[in-house]
Amino acid sequence: MTIRYPSGQQPPNVGRAEQPIVAPHSSSFAKRGMSLEKEINDANRYYLATEQAVIYKKPTPIQLVKVDYPKRSAAVVKEAYFKRPSTTDYNGVYQGYYVDFDAKETRGKLSFPLKNFHQHQVDHFRRCLAQGGVCFAFIRFTTLDLTYLLPASDLIAFWDQQGRGGRKSVPLTTIKDRGFRVKTGLTPVLDYLPALDQLIAANQAKGADHE
Amino acid sequence: MTIRYPSGQQPPNVGRAEQPIVAPHSSSFAKRGMSLEKEINDANRYYLATEQAVIYKKPTPIQLVKVDYPKRSAAVVKEAYFKRPSTTDYNGVYQGYYVDFDAKETRGKLSFPLKNFHQHQVDHFRRCLAQGGVCFAFIRFTTLDLTYLLPASDLIAFWDQQGRGGRKSVPLTTIKDRGFRVKTGLTPVLDYLPALDQLIAANQAKGADHE
Repeated sequence: MTIRYPSGQQPPNVGRAEQPIVAPHSSSFAKRGMSLEKEINDANRYYLATEQAVIYKKPTPIQLVKVDYPKRSAAVVKEAYFKRPSTTDYNGVYQGYYVDFDAKETRGKLSFPLKNFHQHQVDHFRRCLAQGGVCFAFIRFTTLDLTYLLPASDLIAFWDQQGRGGRKSVPLTTIKDRGFRVKTGLTPVLDYLPALDQLIAANQAKGADHE
Repeated sequence: MTIRYPSGQQPPNVGRAEQPIVAPHSSSFAKRGMSLEKEINDANRYYLATEQAVIYKKPTPIQLVKVDYPKRSAAVVKEAYFKRPSTTDYNGVYQGYYVDFDAKETRGKLSFPLKNFHQHQVDHFRRCLAQGGVCFAFIRFTTLDLTYLLPASDLIAFWDQQGRGGRKSVPLTTIKDRGFRVKTGLTPVLDYLPALDQLIAANQAKGADHE
């Protein structure tokens, strides 16, 4: 099966950009985030084509101010601003489960700084977990070349104790203990469904009342 | 519980727009679509605030061409184009179910024209159904003031027979028979979760192999 991308709305003078749009509020992490995001997008395209999962990165929301509608050609946005999303970046459906996650990279070697997450993302995780969604953080330690799926419930526990004077990062040892390692493959490079299967199985082992 | 929208990225010279962005490819239906979309967005905000469901309208994807980064103020998009989405407009999680839908209005009184849907939306429904998602079309007959949730499987059946020389619309009688009526309430005005409950129950009655 080949995925065909719609072509009707393509502007004539630009190439097809599959790169995620970098919003200004994430600029300090944008560079580091690009390769993980690209690998996740590649994996999602592969899972879509092989009918294993339907997971997309959400577009960055834009506040339109001025749009021109030239005759006989596509509408042109002339002034717009980035808006902060209300949710995480990725969601979709996998084997009956609602799946929701965000992807973050750190150059740290010992722990993952919680400042990589925003309050609205944690709040969104909480709401989705309450509805029975499968939620996690896709965390990469770039220097160590280690990638894990950390269940959102564990992230939330660390987030909440931070506000009570606790530590401002999640130790790598905890992530190794609570998370599920994503191994690097060939097709796709970032084959994360096996780790997701483990996460789902662990959720089920904890029972339906784990949240 | 009050929903707080992020304010950090708000441009200084525009009001907060909760209105859906109208992409050029949908312009012929944009006006009619606005009120249904607004009612769905209002319902989703209510369901979020009351912790009944987490469902969002996806932002319209934008192809960025030129972005200015003025010092000490927010980035400004100076040239961009609308892209056709790969998916439907709405998705989220409700009581453990992945929920996915699109909303369409018609002024017809006897049937719903299939040309309101696009191939990519039908393909997306097919993929999501195969993964166990709950998928449907949110259809409003504006002149009759009747709104239904039509299961995606029924929409797909009509879509497919259209290609084999079949009819180009779904009769209202079929929609009444196969769909689930959304009744108008007070808070929210468009209280569609009861109809969604009926749709989910009917799916389950048909058994796990109904797709």
